[in-house]
Amino acid sequence: MQPVLDYLATHRSRFEEELCQYLRLPSVSAQSSHNKDVRATADWLVKHCRSIGLKAKKHATDFHPIVTASTPRHPGKRPHFLVYGHYDVQPPEPLEEWNTPPFEPTIRNGAVYARGATDNKGQHFAHLKAVEAFLKTDTDLGCDLTFVIEGEEEVGSESLVAFLRKKKRELKCDGIVVSDTGMPSKKHPALTYALRGVTAMEITVWGPKADLHSGIYGGSVDNPALVLSQMLGSLRDKKGRVAVPGFYGKVQKLTAYERKQMKRLPINETQYRKLVGVPKLFGEAGYTHHEQRSARPTLEINGLTSGYQGEGSKTIVPSWASAKITCRLVPNQDPRQVNRLLGKQLKKLCPPTVKLEIVDGHGAEAYHVPPTGSMSQAALEALRESFGHEPVLLREGGSIPIINEFKKVLGADSLLLGLALPDDNLHSPNEKFDLDCFHNGAEMSARLWPKLAEL
Amino acid sequence: MQPVLDYLATHRSRFEEELCQYLRLPSVSAQSSHNKDVRATADWLVKHCRSIGLKAKKHATDFHPIVTASTPRHPGKRPHFLVYGHYDVQPPEPLEEWNTPPFEPTIRNGAVYARGATDNKGQHFAHLKAVEAFLKTDTDLGCDLTFVIEGEEEVGSESLVAFLRKKKRELKCDGIVVSDTGMPSKKHPALTYALRGVTAMEITVWGPKADLHSGIYGGSVDNPALVLSQMLGSLRDKKGRVAVPGFYGKVQKLTAYERKQMKRLPINETQYRKLVGVPKLFGEAGYTHHEQRSARPTLEINGLTSGYQGEGSKTIVPSWASAKITCRLVPNQDPRQVNRLLGKQLKKLCPPTVKLEIVDGHGAEAYHVPPTGSMSQAALEALRESFGHEPVLLREGGSIPIINEFKKVLGADSLLLGLALPDDNLHSPNEKFDLDCFHNGAEMSARLWPKLAEL
Repeated sequence: MQPVLDYLATHRSRFEEELCQYLRLPSVSAQSSHNKDVRATADWLVKHCRSIGLKAKKHATDFHPIVTASTPRHPGKRPHFLVYGHYDVQPPEPLEEWNTPPFEPTIRNGAVYARGATDNKGQHFAHLKAVEAFLKTDTDLGCDLTFVIEGEEEVGSESLVAFLRKKKRELKCDGIVVSDTGMPSKKHPALTYALRGVTAMEITVWGPKADLHSGIYGGSVDNPALVLSQMLGSLRDKKGRVAVPGFYGKVQKLTAYERKQMKRLPINETQYRKLVGVPKLFGEAGYTHHEQRSARPTLEINGLTSGYQGEGSKTIVPSWASAKITCRLVPNQDPRQVNRLLGKQLKKLCPPTVKLEIVDGHGAEAYHVPPTGSMSQAALEALRESFGHEPVLLREGGSIPIINEFKKVLGADSLLLGLALPDDNLHSPNEKFDLDCFHNGAEMSARLWPKLAEL
Repeated sequence: MQPVLDYLATHRSRFEEELCQYLRLPSVSAQSSHNKDVRATADWLVKHCRSIGLKAKKHATDFHPIVTASTPRHPGKRPHFLVYGHYDVQPPEPLEEWNTPPFEPTIRNGAVYARGATDNKGQHFAHLKAVEAFLKTDTDLGCDLTFVIEGEEEVGSESLVAFLRKKKRELKCDGIVVSDTGMPSKKHPALTYALRGVTAMEITVWGPKADLHSGIYGGSVDNPALVLSQMLGSLRDKKGRVAVPGFYGKVQKLTAYERKQMKRLPINETQYRKLVGVPKLFGEAGYTHHEQRSARPTLEINGLTSGYQGEGSKTIVPSWASAKITCRLVPNQDPRQVNRLLGKQLKKLCPPTVKLEIVDGHGAEAYHVPPTGSMSQAALEALRESFGHEPVLLREGGSIPIINEFKKVLGADSLLLGLALPDDNLHSPNEKFDLDCFHNGAEMSARLWPKLAEL
């Protein structure tokens, strides 16, 4: 390993320069005016991968190309891992809020500022540099690696899903490493081992055939907005639990080990309360805020619409009232089943004075890799050695749909080894990537492969 | 009386022609392009009043002129009554939905079709024709009459309120007759003896300082839309009663006489349910739909707003949620006190996890003239004799602000003797006024004055 680590130490400033070259390319996947730039970025990436000794290829898709790059393959003879990343970036607007232009990377205070710096160019570039160190020092990785770097992550990854299915055999692997999540601080390198799932629903309560004059009719006709309020209000009890029979039936419980790990996370209750800006926190009784927002299921109203919303008052009984609802799910909960249970309860709550319409929305299952498993433990070791701090175990409250696809199509688990700091401004002006995270991340990657190869 | 009734019978077709002349004038008070027409209409009205023997005057105001027209006055010597009406009309749009142009009055199927036919030119014109009959036949009215016909009813009557205060002495009277309400059918001439009041409020529940990602934060922060739903849902009990302590404290109860009268109203529950288009009616237990919507107080949500309202889903914990609320009030309820009680209850219901903002809106007291009083009984007699059917007693669910002003400024009660039928299309295309209602209305007016004079 020493030659690899030495190589990484020696070439730090060149790596930073190369990263800046990569960041200079405005690969905004959502804006068609940038389609040419997106393709040029894929080309740059292929060329770069080849220059460090990888076998790279640009794959045409229905939209933006996918780049793959592999170390020499030994199919069936040694483990094969994927590294996933995306070279496309979020739109940079509003431009006037950037201190330096989004596509003119600038290094200041130990970080590189540019659109895509942390999401996700910088993060997967760290992995490329680790592999470069192995290849350039003729050090054996102990396993085969394939980078899969797409250009549509910010617009839904549709082509990647099709690509995974098509290249299922070639991409057969023992695990996927993804650096596209976060770490609480530079002193808290992190392994994210679980993601919540989600399920969406929109309900409408239909009352009178038109908005009615509340003077002429009010009192003799049920009010859809009031009915909706009563129905929604009944979906949560005083202890902050979702009051839908069966909702918690399949919920995977937190282990004592996980709860102990969560206690190590920074940000106490007061800090967290100030961060979100509420007078008092609220959540399911018996759980910390870290647990509530990452390891427990929820029911949220995302939107309410009814009647008159303009200035002043309009004295009507509205014809209808609607709500957008999503539930965050934890491992073992099935989005379709949760929607069925919720729908059943809503029908039970709905009085005969109105009609209830339910429209199911998208769903995604939760994701969970046991943090006590050997892959996770190898990752924690690599994090510890490269960052010099005891890593934390994270559960993420949101879902990353592509992780479910990897599991579904390739049957492999993902290690989420995110290098983004909380103040990295993902999707916002002045996005940055900390250079310590970049170099420590490259080292972490270098230390990881031999460990994974030995499992 | 006979010469008066004969005169009314003889001149029916001329009265209809004159009404058509009046309706031809496009006195749309809301559209400044019609300001000239509004003034021309006032001038036409003054001229017409003079032609039938009244002393008429056009009064300039800050906006549209007011017309007054009086029979010879005998101040202090005999009773003085006002007849209120308005010569301004609603905008006629959408024009393409009219079968014949709104300002080209057309008589078909025994009704005159034109904008303003029933609201309100036709209705007060019937009273003018009754007075004409007295004056042209030299029959003594037994009382003095002053018509007050304004040009801003459809835009808020602001000038009239100032005018009443200014002319308080001149307009001192024993009662006001207003034909600007409705009757259930030609077989159900009606006296409206009560109007509900109203009070408005807008509340906002403030949660996190910005919309939060429901994956990252959901579960550990209260959801303002859910809190609002729970608060609003608690404002009504299962029996349809408003669950605000003290809300019913001062409510004037319905008398046995009133309830008996209400039972005579046409439109049964099934017909009413179909009219409003709901699967099942709902209202305060123990009251009929007529009672619920005219004689009982209510609490309605007029609008709900929170979070994401666009297409599809957006996984957020919304930063705030708001509701527009109005209460319909009945006699003896004070709008300010009701708002205080409601605000107190909302504060009690609001958890410490959010902030509650309450903004009070407009309020108006309910109106009530005892239907067993002598003025009401005189009006019922006049209705019975002229329409040939037993009149019904109506309470109206909405409020007519000017009626409260008459009471407040002049200290006089109003008799609401509306001549509009349910299908007269007030404020809609193809507005009409039934000619039977017109002529019977004129006869009712003629029969009314001697009765009122004798009280």
